Amino acid sequence: MANKDMEKLIAHAKSSGFVYQGSEIYNGLANTWDYGPLGVEMKNNIKRLWWKRFIQESPYNVGLDSAIFMNPRVWEASGHVGGFSDPLTECKHCHTRHRVDKLIEDFDPNVHCEGWEPEEMMKYIRENHIQCPDCGEEDFTDIREFELMFKTSMGVVKDAKNDIYLRPETAQGIFVNFKNIQRTSRKKVPFGIGQIGKSFRNEITPGNFIFRTREFEQMELEFFCKPDTDLEWFSYWKEGCMQFLLDLGLTKDNLHFRDHALEELSFYSKATSDIEYLYPAPLGWGELWGIADRTDYDLSRHQQYSKKSLEYLDPETNQKYIPYVIEPSVGADRLFLAILADAYDEEQLENDTRLVMHLHPAVAPVKAAILPLTKKQSDKAMEVYSMLAKEFNVEFDVAGQIGKRYRRQDAIGTPYCITIDFDTDTDQSVTLRDRDTMEQIRLPIDELVHYIGEKVKF
Amino acid sequence: MANKDMEKLIAHAKSSGFVYQGSEIYNGLANTWDYGPLGVEMKNNIKRLWWKRFIQESPYNVGLDSAIFMNPRVWEASGHVGGFSDPLTECKHCHTRHRVDKLIEDFDPNVHCEGWEPEEMMKYIRENHIQCPDCGEEDFTDIREFELMFKTSMGVVKDAKNDIYLRPETAQGIFVNFKNIQRTSRKKVPFGIGQIGKSFRNEITPGNFIFRTREFEQMELEFFCKPDTDLEWFSYWKEGCMQFLLDLGLTKDNLHFRDHALEELSFYSKATSDIEYLYPAPLGWGELWGIADRTDYDLSRHQQYSKKSLEYLDPETNQKYIPYVIEPSVGADRLFLAILADAYDEEQLENDTRLVMHLHPAVAPVKAAILPLTKKQSDKAMEVYSMLAKEFNVEFDVAGQIGKRYRRQDAIGTPYCITIDFDTDTDQSVTLRDRDTMEQIRLPIDELVHYIGEKVKF
Repeated sequence: MANKDMEKLIAHAKSSGFVYQGSEIYNGLANTWDYGPLGVEMKNNIKRLWWKRFIQESPYNVGLDSAIFMNPRVWEASGHVGGFSDPLTECKHCHTRHRVDKLIEDFDPNVHCEGWEPEEMMKYIRENHIQCPDCGEEDFTDIREFELMFKTSMGVVKDAKNDIYLRPETAQGIFVNFKNIQRTSRKKVPFGIGQIGKSFRNEITPGNFIFRTREFEQMELEFFCKPDTDLEWFSYWKEGCMQFLLDLGLTKDNLHFRDHALEELSFYSKATSDIEYLYPAPLGWGELWGIADRTDYDLSRHQQYSKKSLEYLDPETNQKYIPYVIEPSVGADRLFLAILADAYDEEQLENDTRLVMHLHPAVAPVKAAILPLTKKQSDKAMEVYSMLAKEFNVEFDVAGQIGKRYRRQDAIGTPYCITIDFDTDTDQSVTLRDRDTMEQIRLPIDELVHYIGEKVKF
Repeated sequence: MANKDMEKLIAHAKSSGFVYQGSEIYNGLANTWDYGPLGVEMKNNIKRLWWKRFIQESPYNVGLDSAIFMNPRVWEASGHVGGFSDPLTECKHCHTRHRVDKLIEDFDPNVHCEGWEPEEMMKYIRENHIQCPDCGEEDFTDIREFELMFKTSMGVVKDAKNDIYLRPETAQGIFVNFKNIQRTSRKKVPFGIGQIGKSFRNEITPGNFIFRTREFEQMELEFFCKPDTDLEWFSYWKEGCMQFLLDLGLTKDNLHFRDHALEELSFYSKATSDIEYLYPAPLGWGELWGIADRTDYDLSRHQQYSKKSLEYLDPETNQKYIPYVIEPSVGADRLFLAILADAYDEEQLENDTRLVMHLHPAVAPVKAAILPLTKKQSDKAMEVYSMLAKEFNVEFDVAGQIGKRYRRQDAIGTPYCITIDFDTDTDQSVTLRDRDTMEQIRLPIDELVHYIGEKVKF
């Protein structure tokens, strides 16, 4: 096992083309990251696989892509306006602001402040003499609320009342479309609606690479079920999410459930559980996937605020009710980080160390690299490239000795290297090297698509 | 050919689950639209096919996914701050504001105002007695500039200088990453970088359904080439874009190039051409894809503003230069609209009219519908569903008579209906009906994946 740490991972992600600092030539913009040629392929793969598992293959679920801009009343109903804010305190000495729950949890990682009252938190801070991380003093203001949503204004006339927000979650786009989708897709409860899209939160302590960013991409499912069946479905989706992570190849020992204690639960939630992942140091265990039983809270609120009925008429019992909701929600960026970290390995060979990313072939950004042995094989290599590129994302790699090219492909997680050599023209075959075993086999060119196709299945 | 008009298309898109009005239960939010279960599948298909053609299959191009939030200096360099604004006038009578170029082009569709000076435009308006579309008066103010970018602020301290913008185009994310990508992907000029992502423009006259929205999704390619080869590559990409549209099945007669006249060109552009599409009435011919030779303008500006060298060192000639850029840029929403409109047909049958969407099978949201003839076939139907759902987005459709279900699937463009009937259990075969020909064939279940797979290829 490699000695994993975040700094190493960030450096490798940058130098190989997975993730760059955003706006880097302008010295960046705090906490923004750009997915490079390898990163975008891998992120697209992750999103596609989530969609395949949770939407395409599920007989229950359908998809949605709702707008980022929503009617501001949505955020009143959801409780985000007025409520969605971090508990903040300011250091009276150096005037920096800090999230109170984070100060406490950094001080003692075994403490979880969800559900604590502001006074409780400040009491804890003062009793435990927690210091300002910036200046070391112990002189904090009382808690202040800070608006977490990004606000902008829309339209031509600047003085009109046209403030709108960037959505802080994709979930509300699902709730407000519940009736439209149920009607047009003729779905019966239980059924779910899934969505992948950008959300924005003006976090005060973003950080840890792409673990917490102000602009991020969510993969959310809202699953609507009959009120007395919710805890069953809660278990069903908990298991389904964990199975998906294991199928993606994440190490079992780096994953666990953390069920929220009663006092941690939001007032409307009957049960919540996080799948936590052991991120590279210094981050450690942290949330990857949240699964929550949100009861009928969201639909009830929207019914109340919109004055439109969001009740469901059960065609079998003729009963009317507001469905309960199970919400499994995972960040695409955070899952990307977990997968990248999990795959990273510095493998000790006999006389050498190799950096290899043991990515699941379905997730790997490049499925195969095509390596002409010398310039003479370029035409043949291009022929193989064109054939494979119709099916997979493949790369043409001509620079340097074969051994060096193998290492470069190992370091970006390419499952197969295909060498076009002196015999290829004669026997219409190539040498195919496996990233993980480093073993080589001889394979006819016309079997390549099928061979790789089988390996990258999910 | 159907009598196509936008209102009909919008109504069908809504009632069948392609596109709903955004935030509808709150009476909407001007000009926002949500892609429903069918719409999101179709839009994902369009994006995936663009990516396949322009990134995956191209030996030249790689992908990127840069952040929406960028360092504000980017917009100074790009000319968006201070410059990116619509020429606006206000009616002195009713105080509505209007885009001056739009007033003129609505008055005479043969006039194109790109490149006109403000005074020229106002002169034209006054000489031709163009009236206010809202109140009919002829009393306009002189032209005012209006900021097209959405502004918001980031970070904790509200009074600090932390205004940022929502990007008005994805292109700048590519330009600022030019050096990082060239280095890490070891690409040599000519090569391109493509990106799909949301952009935001505070348009004053959005409208025509998803033709022009304030929040929209772009599919942009920036292709970097040697300065004296730019016009060749310009032609190459013009043809490539048109071919892609034809391959998607768009009607040839509904597409044409409109080369910009010299006086229309932006000052930095050597050549620009739009692929226009004949949208449903009342819209008519309008831009679908813009292909521009932007010379070395963008990289030069970023070199100047960032003070980082963006020159490319040609490894063969040892020459240093700033590459020229060809930019083919298309809106995913606009392409979605063109495809939807093009596919829409009200077909006259012998005793009947059928609404059918002749979508390319690769674009169609549902590849096949599985129809058990009666409840007795449900288990078998679910077996077929599970098999197919591993490969394609398929639907289970049980409600109503078979004929009615065929029509429903025709109306959403499903290429194949698979009926599970009384004989299926015995002969392990199904009846497969073709959407376009309405012909039916008998096919063994274990040939379905291959059969459909061949048809949905792109």
